[in-house]
Amino acid sequence: MKRLNTTPKQDGFRMPAEFEKHAGTYIIWPERPDNWRLGGKPAQEVFVKVASVIGKYEPVTMCVSRGQYSNARHLLPDYVRVVEMSNDDSWIRDCGATFVVNDQGEVRGVDWTFNAWGGLVDGLYFPWDQDDKIAQKMCELERVDSYRLDDFILEGGSIHVDGEGTVMVTEECLLSEGRNSKMSREEIEKVLCEYLNCEKVLWIPNGIYNDETNGHVDNMCNFVRPGVVVLAWTDDENDPQYARSKEAYEYLSSVTDAKGRKLEIHKLLVPSPVLITKEESLGVDSVDGTLPREEGDRMAASYVNYYTGNGFIALPVFGDPNDELAIKTLKELYPDRVIEPIYAREILLGGGNIHCITQQLPAGK
Amino acid sequence: MKRLNTTPKQDGFRMPAEFEKHAGTYIIWPERPDNWRLGGKPAQEVFVKVASVIGKYEPVTMCVSRGQYSNARHLLPDYVRVVEMSNDDSWIRDCGATFVVNDQGEVRGVDWTFNAWGGLVDGLYFPWDQDDKIAQKMCELERVDSYRLDDFILEGGSIHVDGEGTVMVTEECLLSEGRNSKMSREEIEKVLCEYLNCEKVLWIPNGIYNDETNGHVDNMCNFVRPGVVVLAWTDDENDPQYARSKEAYEYLSSVTDAKGRKLEIHKLLVPSPVLITKEESLGVDSVDGTLPREEGDRMAASYVNYYTGNGFIALPVFGDPNDELAIKTLKELYPDRVIEPIYAREILLGGGNIHCITQQLPAGK
Repeated sequence: MKRLNTTPKQDGFRMPAEFEKHAGTYIIWPERPDNWRLGGKPAQEVFVKVASVIGKYEPVTMCVSRGQYSNARHLLPDYVRVVEMSNDDSWIRDCGATFVVNDQGEVRGVDWTFNAWGGLVDGLYFPWDQDDKIAQKMCELERVDSYRLDDFILEGGSIHVDGEGTVMVTEECLLSEGRNSKMSREEIEKVLCEYLNCEKVLWIPNGIYNDETNGHVDNMCNFVRPGVVVLAWTDDENDPQYARSKEAYEYLSSVTDAKGRKLEIHKLLVPSPVLITKEESLGVDSVDGTLPREEGDRMAASYVNYYTGNGFIALPVFGDPNDELAIKTLKELYPDRVIEPIYAREILLGGGNIHCITQQLPAGK
Repeated sequence: MKRLNTTPKQDGFRMPAEFEKHAGTYIIWPERPDNWRLGGKPAQEVFVKVASVIGKYEPVTMCVSRGQYSNARHLLPDYVRVVEMSNDDSWIRDCGATFVVNDQGEVRGVDWTFNAWGGLVDGLYFPWDQDDKIAQKMCELERVDSYRLDDFILEGGSIHVDGEGTVMVTEECLLSEGRNSKMSREEIEKVLCEYLNCEKVLWIPNGIYNDETNGHVDNMCNFVRPGVVVLAWTDDENDPQYARSKEAYEYLSSVTDAKGRKLEIHKLLVPSPVLITKEESLGVDSVDGTLPREEGDRMAASYVNYYTGNGFIALPVFGDPNDELAIKTLKELYPDRVIEPIYAREILLGGGNIHCITQQLPAGK
């Protein structure tokens, strides 16, 4: 499949919003024992659950290393397609292709450079060369051409689009030292707008407290539909999350989107702080160069990290009283979708959640 | 995708003839240095040529190991799809899925057990576990269900079907000690007929002289169309090939196919004996358990190992005076297809030829 030297905007392609129709969902099978406790077995069980739920609504492709292929095929339901794909970890939202479409329903991929959330500055593991090939391999599988950006670092979880010209990011992530620190904010905006085919970038200052991705927007804020967002929130002024959510709320209240609309903001209360237990910490291999999982560390738990698919919302829940509130809020915001809560502590322990482990393939012709 | 416990015959599926319409062609990228000289580079060049030619007529998928992925993607034309797939070598005719179709155009795969042409008796390398997973991975990629035979060993190159109830094999291969030697000829016939949906098995005694596959039929004889075959031939009575071709001719002259037709037999003269040179031999790594490539060894060169696709014949040629004769014969036999001769000595050096490195996906709905 071709590697293109033009840009999606030049060619009339745009990134559709996640809530637009999908052709399917990609996921990568978790296995690395220095990130997933107990050899990845508890995480694999939850990934099976996520794939099984999503697979009821749209085709799911699970990407699996050579060594885990037979195990994954054995554990997953028949209706999930299992393909071999080497990887360094299982965050396809971040290392996978960002798909774009044109008005004729043709699909292409955007293949950003991936550097494990900060490269040699504050990346989370080394090396990341197999992850950086995932986007191209997805495009090859789908027989679509791709745009490769060799000198622009981005993860899919650090952007959200409304499909109508607006992209939402955080300053914490997109201006971080470990990514495109040689570029100005304006230069970064230009790349985003060219490759997502947007006209306006919304810059939320910070993401979720202690989020190892340098505050990805997909854990903090999401578009429900054009003009409507959900924002991670806490009413506890003593929680370090409070100031982050408050400044985001104030920022979002003050801006308009690409179409000139003021945003309708819905708050989604985060769960009580979720800490790594001693047992959980002990299940993870210690490896130089990989972020350790230490007892008592606070994880970046947020309901905003849900995944929107054809007729459903796959929502992470934590066994917290706020679970029910999140379900209720999303039921109201998405009256036409089934809310599918999935107990996702094991994904959170790996450093992300359901949105981080999924990547949509938009419906084409 | 499902693993089925029924048989294609029970379910109304049959293996179409190779000359029926394809949805595409699968190939595996060559690399193992104990089979392909000079680290596989000369072979890779020819595989690129084969994929490029076939890709002009139908979609080609190249299956490539993790380590060779980038190199293969770089060397192949854009219109060839490159997917990651671990392998032990590059003979997808033999380790790949045999696809079957039903009258509604649904496609399924037959996943025979593969043991590297004879397992621990006279197999050509060890281990072969990755090759044995290729068929399932092809079925997963294509989202088709499959029939797995855990206790029947077969390579796709050891069968040819006419699509109308006849399957052609050699006794040399199918009755070999390293495959299903615990089964009787009748038991083997029953499995072939159930899984290919055939009524009659034609048993040619032997294949090409010195063919390391134990005389695969696909190097010896092929169906041009129902009722018409080409047979590898030599007029040199001193060539050990002579007796083999003669007995095959006599056998084929004496039988009828599943529809009761006598066979029309066309002879395809083999090239003069093709021997491994010293330089070629020296380029191959020596590894215990892998068949060595020794100077002076005669290779199983035959024009019958051509591949029939949508509107074309990919024909191996050897720089031999008989090349032109083979081209002429096939032009007459296939007036509606373009004959595409490809100089294929480098594939032959690895132990097979163009038919051995290709596997068709039949057109479905």
